[in-house]
Formats: sequence, structure tokens, C-alpha cells
Amino acid sequence: MGDFYADLRDMRFVLFEQLRVQELSKTTRYGDFDQEMMDAILTEGFNFSKQVVAPTNAEGDRTGARFEGGKVFMPEIFGPVLKAWGENGWTALIENPEYGGQGAPLVLMSAIDEMFVGANCALSLTPMLTIGAAHLIEEFGEDWMKGIFLEKMYSHKWAGTMCLTEPQAGSDVGANRARAIRQPDGAYKIIGTKNFISSGDQQFSENIIHMVLARTEGAPPGTGGISLFLVPKLMVDKATGKITGPNDVAAANIEHKMGIHGSPTCTMNFGDNEQCFGWLIGEEHKGMRLMFHMMNEARVYVGMQGLGLAAAGYEKAVRYANERLQGPSVLNFKDPAAPKTAIVNHPDVKRMLMDIKAAICGMRSLFLWVAYQQDVARSTASEDEKFKATGVVELLTPVVKAFGSDLGVELSSEAMQVMGGYGYCTEYEVEQMMRDARIAPIYEGTNGIQAMDLVGRKLGMKGGQYFMNYVFLANKFLQANKTQPGLEDAMKAFEDAKNRLAKLVMKFGNIVKADIEGGLQWAKPFLNMFGYTAIAFELLKQAVVAKEKLEALFAAKGAVTDEAKAEVLKTTADGKFYNGKLQLARYWAATKLPLVPALEAAILSGNRDAIDFNFHLEV
Amino acid sequence: MGDFYADLRDMRFVLFEQLRVQELSKTTRYGDFDQEMMDAILTEGFNFSKQVVAPTNAEGDRTGARFEGGKVFMPEIFGPVLKAWGENGWTALIENPEYGGQGAPLVLMSAIDEMFVGANCALSLTPMLTIGAAHLIEEFGEDWMKGIFLEKMYSHKWAGTMCLTEPQAGSDVGANRARAIRQPDGAYKIIGTKNFISSGDQQFSENIIHMVLARTEGAPPGTGGISLFLVPKLMVDKATGKITGPNDVAAANIEHKMGIHGSPTCTMNFGDNEQCFGWLIGEEHKGMRLMFHMMNEARVYVGMQGLGLAAAGYEKAVRYANERLQGPSVLNFKDPAAPKTAIVNHPDVKRMLMDIKAAICGMRSLFLWVAYQQDVARSTASEDEKFKATGVVELLTPVVKAFGSDLGVELSSEAMQVMGGYGYCTEYEVEQMMRDARIAPIYEGTNGIQAMDLVGRKLGMKGGQYFMNYVFLANKFLQANKTQPGLEDAMKAFEDAKNRLAKLVMKFGNIVKADIEGGLQWAKPFLNMFGYTAIAFELLKQAVVAKEKLEALFAAKGAVTDEAKAEVLKTTADGKFYNGKLQLARYWAATKLPLVPALEAAILSGNRDAIDFNFHLEV
Repeated sequence: MGDFYADLRDMRFVLFEQLRVQELSKTTRYGDFDQEMMDAILTEGFNFSKQVVAPTNAEGDRTGARFEGGKVFMPEIFGPVLKAWGENGWTALIENPEYGGQGAPLVLMSAIDEMFVGANCALSLTPMLTIGAAHLIEEFGEDWMKGIFLEKMYSHKWAGTMCLTEPQAGSDVGANRARAIRQPDGAYKIIGTKNFISSGDQQFSENIIHMVLARTEGAPPGTGGISLFLVPKLMVDKATGKITGPNDVAAANIEHKMGIHGSPTCTMNFGDNEQCFGWLIGEEHKGMRLMFHMMNEARVYVGMQGLGLAAAGYEKAVRYANERLQGPSVLNFKDPAAPKTAIVNHPDVKRMLMDIKAAICGMRSLFLWVAYQQDVARSTASEDEKFKATGVVELLTPVVKAFGSDLGVELSSEAMQVMGGYGYCTEYEVEQMMRDARIAPIYEGTNGIQAMDLVGRKLGMKGGQYFMNYVFLANKFLQANKTQPGLEDAMKAFEDAKNRLAKLVMKFGNIVKADIEGGLQWAKPFLNMFGYTAIAFELLKQAVVAKEKLEALFAAKGAVTDEAKAEVLKTTADGKFYNGKLQLARYWAATKLPLVPALEAAILSGNRDAIDFNFHLEV
Repeated sequence: MGDFYADLRDMRFVLFEQLRVQELSKTTRYGDFDQEMMDAILTEGFNFSKQVVAPTNAEGDRTGARFEGGKVFMPEIFGPVLKAWGENGWTALIENPEYGGQGAPLVLMSAIDEMFVGANCALSLTPMLTIGAAHLIEEFGEDWMKGIFLEKMYSHKWAGTMCLTEPQAGSDVGANRARAIRQPDGAYKIIGTKNFISSGDQQFSENIIHMVLARTEGAPPGTGGISLFLVPKLMVDKATGKITGPNDVAAANIEHKMGIHGSPTCTMNFGDNEQCFGWLIGEEHKGMRLMFHMMNEARVYVGMQGLGLAAAGYEKAVRYANERLQGPSVLNFKDPAAPKTAIVNHPDVKRMLMDIKAAICGMRSLFLWVAYQQDVARSTASEDEKFKATGVVELLTPVVKAFGSDLGVELSSEAMQVMGGYGYCTEYEVEQMMRDARIAPIYEGTNGIQAMDLVGRKLGMKGGQYFMNYVFLANKFLQANKTQPGLEDAMKAFEDAKNRLAKLVMKFGNIVKADIEGGLQWAKPFLNMFGYTAIAFELLKQAVVAKEKLEALFAAKGAVTDEAKAEVLKTTADGKFYNGKLQLARYWAATKLPLVPALEAAILSGNRDAIDFNFHLEV
């Protein structure tokens, strides 16, 4: 079908009515980005997604990447898109103008990323990784590196990759063995094998710049002995930036995967002939620290993949449900001659669509808020504001990544369920979305690792202040809005969930201290508890904004009586939209917040049968 | 990898220690099937699954079914397997000896079906559908039909299909349009198109016998006007049973799907040239009623697909987790030189494996119990016993189908998560299992329809006695076992869940009566609430049996002191296994039963925002 739809109305609501990101235009850094400008770019992002990117999605999946004669090929149909991606400035959008970037805020890019992912998840990985690699160079590289690589990468003439994983190490990056041997000229000889490298090789870029983790000679074991290197596919002259010839880097194979077929997942050999060279980025042994610095961005992006695929799937499912006639309305179920109704009118289909819609709106609000806080942190002059904004990003990144990617699978599956047998078939691409979404809980740190990051690092960061600040925001919000008519029950449910979460955080440290294995089994359930609560917070924030907008709308329409107001809610597009925000918040509070005490009960059960269970195989 | 493993130990436990299905050998019908005989057949089923079926799974997925020159082809590699399937007697196992069957109980076949599905879900659909079609003939067909078709089908020389769905009707079978025009000789001319027909055509069977729903001339609208017809692919002489030539039945196309690639999902044209003939089965206009009669069996089978794929995935994941070394134990997390440990020792991995294992054991127990009750109903002389057994089957079938198929997707996904990036790749076949599992919530009545069946038909069946009998069983069990040492908390949690369920059932009718749309949106959440409770019941039943077995084991080992008993639990295979049953029951009660009040809270919230939400697209 190849159709692509996005909920631009809701994106604009989050950006300009709820977060009011246009306020950024008052800062020096983002002075050019007023609402009009950002809206124009958002619209362009949608047009590009719909017209250029989405039409390649199904074919990219069918064709897949291939490995042939030692070379890696992405689907041919991706070529013109990747070219246009760079030429139309999408890889340069948020980048430093000094290197050809346009300097836009991340929150705008994130809204557009949702659409790029929804239009073609596999393809959009390549430019995303290029940006990630380039950011490492810009942040920590030497000046000559910035001069040579950044403009090429931000224009997407050269691509970039992240080479962390090794076959024997997997998630345990500290066990990496790739070696880096210092050469007389200051460069390093690189020897080692990396696997699961997305876009590790492909035919469309003039050069590919690998960010490689490796150990220098005599480095200590574990993550504290790992350094970061820039290793180009084609060697580059440090002085002129010209390509001088091949480096000893080669793809050894690609993986056959459930989804993201168009994205080549490569095993990369560095220095098979001992002729691979690269340059150190930052200091020796600090590689992991530098990587961590960039990780929040990548992890929020992975959460955004969950959202993008769920949202694109929802848009298809809701259209299908409006068109597909099947069975009579339950209101006429006893009349065999009753006319058929669209399945969108069946209560069970409404339930599924509402589950998806509420989660999507909550995720979009949460993820864009987190992205926006990065812009705030970068552009504010206030140290306090910067601390608070950074805290939101640090604290919520694992929630965004894990909860978002889990929901991406769950919701795209639910969108398929709405479409029944047709959803299971390839033609609507929703089954592809579910397959593409399934990688997100695994890569960029599995969701189990995200939960450990949340529980083991983030909750306690800055003496717990980041978390306390989040609770403070919730308290302030509740104080101001607890008695909003029509939202009282939902506010109460959110307050209860927030209190349970806060109380549990106080206890969690002791639980883990008393029994590290028994305690850490609850890291993921705790993250989910946080996720359900955070989504409720977002939906309620939106409902409060929507209530204000509705008051203004009633006034504009001269609706004073309850009947007149109800008429406005039913008959105007804005009335439906803003009223929908109240409905979504209430629905989530009524149906999903009860999961918070359920997860809490599991965590506080003290059950350690999973830890003691004998999973070892009998010989 | 092509490996296949099954938990024969647990199957034997359910069959012979928990359900004690060998008691069936005391009945006339199943006199030959004592424990030794059934165990031998179970073992053969495992061997066939492992040695013959499973090796074709991955290739069948890669090759897929194809439509070429108007003909449908299953993967060539399936041919010898389907042949052996019939020759080794697997399609005849539970069938009537009068027609070449072996007359074994369904519960034995069901245990074996779990393995067949886990070994190759796509392939095993063909014989399953053949049996289903043949059962309709055996139950409702005329004697000449039984004489001609049954032996051919039970030996799997001829295959069978179920042709219900039509493109414009989907789940709304009452909207079917296929026509049947009575001929002077008593046969019917069939004209119409059916889609989503599994194994509608393929190259391996001498003939294919379609069970087709169609409307006779002047039939009333809706399901009450639908009749059932036997329509062979190749026409058969009524007197001799010989194939006389082609019937006017042709596949028009096949679907491209997310999974079950090896199973051709066909669009079938009947009577394109007005030369398609078939025979009425049963009376005119009673087709749906006959179909319903057979539906429980098919629906329990679909639940079994969820179990089979989840179980096969678990077996791979737990082996992977035992072999894959990664990172140090959390007990040594501060020591960078600590040795690597198998990931099975990480708390988050244990949690995932325990989630899967507990659900699998509970499902296996539940599904085999339901299958066994069909055998009891068929073989008992007591009307009361028959009524009770039938009640279990009727009541629980929608739970088995919907909860089992949903869990099939969720658990195979969790098995993938245990295996990380490798799980997402094709080589371990776990990603295929998840794709194959994803059809089960859709076909054979979507899970939303199952929930409506539970709430709208099953709860109130026989004046609610079926449900009351289930509650009575739970009460009796609790009375006898509530104070079992080591299970007190779990028993209490189950009692609470059961009480909530029973109370809600009392209210549900009124909720729906007061607001049919608002009420029916909770049908699926209610089914899930039932599912979590039912699994808890099963795991506790198992734990009680296991406790008895442990007492006997302690006695046999002369273990009297707590230390000696603990030693037996740790060092003997039986000690580990039976103790595991207690652990699984407690874990489920502690971590999943809290979802029961959570679902209850949603259902009782009275929230109808999903019903009122505007899902209609703005023009």
C-alpha cells in the first residue's frame, strides 16, 4: 500500500501548545527557530517522509541488504533517498553551522525522526548513525578531524557507524578484545572483529567513518581500559582531507534478521592484513566515558523508533477500521438484517485503538519533552535550569528507550490485531512495522540493561536529586491541577501512582543491598512501573493544556451553556481534538495506572523463586 | 540450528502424575491406552518431531509456499514429512478404528501436537485441518461419505480444509455470499470465493476435501441461512469412491504473510465455470451450528500453537542462556577481573526465563486438562461427569485460544529477548517462532471474538452452571490445600483472584445490560483476568501434586531433617523438578496475580472514553 500518515496535529500540539518550544527562539543558540520556521520544517519532514521515504519501505524489506563478493549492498531503491536525505539537509538539521549544519533544536529533529522511522525504519538508521558518529568527533575529536569529517558527514556524503559489540562480548563491552597499537606517527594500528554493526558497509557513501572501541597495549581490563578510535573505510590524508586509498577494513558477512531487512547488520574485520589504521578520539582508556556521553541521544532515538513504528501502524489501523465494514453494531446485534458497520464502531476495536492512541500520545509527549530538555540544557544561561533539564534527560532516557521500544512492539502488534488477517499479510506493511520494531528492545543496550541503568545509576545520580526533581514537578503539577473538573479521578490515580513510585525508590536501595540478586530481578518491572506513571503524567499535562484551549474555544464560539459546549466538542475539529486529550488521560488513568500497584506488589513480594529456580540443564 | 527440544519430563508429569490420564484405560473406549502405551506414543511423537519435522522448519520458512501457473506449492521439503505423517499414523491417532484410526485419547494427541507445532508450525497446519474436516464428515456426514472419505483422510492420502471466510465478510461469517444450488441428483452446484484458506491447495495430496459454508437458494440472511458442503478438489464417484476428474475448484492466489510461510493461505474460487459440485453435510441452514460443534477442538489447538511455539522457544533460550558467557555475576560486579558467568545467572535473565517457564507450565496443565475433559466426556458412563467435563471444555475453550495465543506471541518474544541480537537473527529460529505465533490471535476467531464468546455465551451457558462448577472446583481445591506449608501466600492470592473473578461475573451481565458498548469493551480484559487466574489454579494444582511426590522422595531417600531434605531438593533430578513446581506456583502468584485486581479496576472503572472517542477521520 505504501501509504504513510502522521499525526501532524498532535505533533504541533506537543511542540507549540504544550511544550511551547518556540520559546527557544528567545535564546541566542536557537534564535532563528521561531514557530513559523519550525512548523515549516516539520511540514517538510512530513512531505519528505511521505513522498520520498515511505515508498521505499516495503521494497527495501523484500529486497533486503545483501553480502556479495565481499561487499555489502543496501537495497538499490534506498540510494536516491539517502542522497536526497543529505542534499535536503536532514542530516545537517540540528548540527553546528560552523560545519554546514543548520543549528535547529533537537526537539524538532525528534518530531521529524518519528516520521522518518515510521516511513522507513531500516533506511533511517544509516543517517542516524552517521550523525551519532559525527557528534563524537565534534564533541571530543581534534580540530583537524572536525575540519575533515564533519562537513562530509553532516552533508551525508560520508556515512558513520558505531563499532562497539564483539562476538564474544555482546552486552559486556568491557570484555572487548579489539587491539590498538600506537604507531610512530601518532596513529594506531587497529586489529579486531566487531559484529552487529548497523550500516557497517554499504555501496552508497563515498566513505564510511567508523567509531571503534579498542584496547591500547597494556590497558587495564574491563571498561576502564577501552579507548575510542576514528577508523575510516577509505584512508584520508590528515592535511588535505583527500581520500588516499583503502584502509584494511572489510565486512565479513551480514546477519539475516527478523526485520530491518534493508539495514545491513555487518560483521566487520579491522586489520585482517595488519594494515588498518585509525586515530584516537579523546584520551586513552576514556572510550566508554565518551560513548556514554553520546548514549542518551541514541537511546532516546531508539525509544522514538518504538513510537514512530507504533504511530505509523496506528494511522494505518485507524483508517482500515473506518473503512472496513463488518457485522452489525452491537446496539443492533439481535437484528440479522441490521446494516453492517465499520469495525471502528465495535467496542473491542475501540478498546484496541484507544490503548494504542493513548500510549502513542503519552510517548510523544514524553519523548519530545526529554528531547526539548536537551535543547534547554544547551541553550540556557541558568545553571539551575541546566541542571534540572539535564536531570530530566539522564533520569528518563532509560525509560524512554526501554518502555518506548517495548511499547513499539506491543502497539504495532495491536495495530495488526485491529486489521485482522489483512494485518498479518505484507501488503499493509504493519507486519513489517512489528518486525522492524522488535529489534529496538535489544540494541543500544537491551531493555534489561536500561532497567539496570535506571535502578543502579540514574535513580541515585547527583544524590538522588534528578529523581526528586521529577517528583517535585509532579507534585507542583498536582497541586495546581488536582481539582480540575473532569480530571479529578485521573489526577488522584496519578498521585497515587507517583506516591507508590517515590516510596519504592526510597526502599529499592535497601532491597538490593539486602539481596542483590533478589533485588535486581525487579529492575525491569520497576522501569515499567515508572513508564506507566510517566505516561499518565504526560497525558494529564496535555489534558490541562487542552482544557485551557477548550475554554478559549467555547468563548470564541460563544458557547455558554452545557449544551452549547457539548455541541462545540462534537462538531468542531478543535473541540474533538482537545476533548480527546481529556479522554485519553482519563482512559490511561483508569485502565493502565492500576498496573502500577500490581507491579509494586510483585516487587515488594520478596519472592526469590526465580533466583533459586534450577535453570541448569540436566546432563 | 534446526535443533528441537521438548520438556518430556513435564508432559509426563501433567499426563501421568497430575491428570492421571492412564485412568482412561479403565473405560471401554480407551481400554488399550494404559500409561506404558501412551508413554511410548508420546516418545515416538517427540522423536518424529525432532528427527523428521523440525529439520524442515527453517527451510520451509525461507522457501515459503508459492503460487505458480495457477497452482499452489508448499515447500518441497515438506513432501516427505507429510507423507510420513500419514504413514506413521499421526493423522489417525485419535480417530475411529472403524475408519482406520487408532482410537487414542485427545489428551495424548494434544501433548504431541504441542511438539509438532513447536517443530514446524506451518507444516503441522495441513494434517490438523485434514483431521478437522474429517471430523465434520464423521460426525454429520452421510454413511457413503464416511465410507469414501474418512479412511483416505485419516491416512492423510487426502487432505482437508475449512472454507469459512470470504473477502467481504471476514469475521462476520453470517455475511457470507457463496451460493449452493440444489441439483436434480441431490448434489449442489457451488459458486463463490473464499479467502484465507489454509492449505486450500498444495501439491502433495491426491485429493483435497473442502468443507465449504454456502447459502442455498432462498436461505434466510445471517448465520441462520448458512449450510455446510463437502466439495472435493477432484470429483469422486459416490458409488465407488474413485476419482473421476477435476471439480471446478481453483486457487486464485496466496497471501504473503509475516509468518507460517510454508503454509499456503489461499484464495479459492469455487465454480468459476459453474461446474463445481458438492454435497450437503447435515441439514440445510444448520452449517454454522455444525461448525460450532467442531470449533472447540480447533480453538484449543490454536491455544496449543501458542504453547508449542513458546515452549520450543523457551527450550532454545534456556540452552543459550546456559552456554552464553557474558559479564561477571552481579555478586562480583565491583571486581573487573571477576570471571564471566553464563547469562542464565543474571537476575534479569532469570526473571525472563521464569516468566516464560511459569506461563508454559500453567498453559500446558490447563490445555491438557481441557483436552482430557473431552476424553472424559466421550468415555464416561456418568451423565453428571459428562456434564461437568463438557462444561470445562465449553467454558475454558475461549480462554485457551485467546490467552494461549496471546502468550504465544509474548513468550516467544521474551525468549528472543533472552537471546539478544542472536535471537533477532534467523539462525536460532526463535524469531520465526514469534512470527509464526503471531497468526494465532487472529485466526480461528480473533481473540476479541473469543472474549465476546466467553462473556456473551460461555459464562451464561446452562444457566451459568459451567462457570459455577469451575468456581466449585477451585473452592474444593482451596479447602483441601489452603494451608499447605510453603504455599499459603500463593493459595491466598489465588483465592482472592478467584473471588474477584466470581464476583465480577455476577456483575458483568448488568454492566453490559446498562451500557452494551461500554460494557463489552471489557470483554477482553475480563478474559485476561480469567486467564491469569486459571494459570494460577493450574500451577497450584501442580504444586500440590509435587508436594506429595516430594514427601515420597524424602521417605525413599531417608531424608528426615530439614538439612537432609534440602539436600535432596538440590541434588536429585526429581527433587529439583518437584521443588520447581512449588517455585513456579509461588512466582506466578506473586508476580502475575496482582494483575487480576488491576484488570478488575479497569473493568469496574466505568470509563467509557474509548467508546466516546472520535476515531473518525476528519475529511
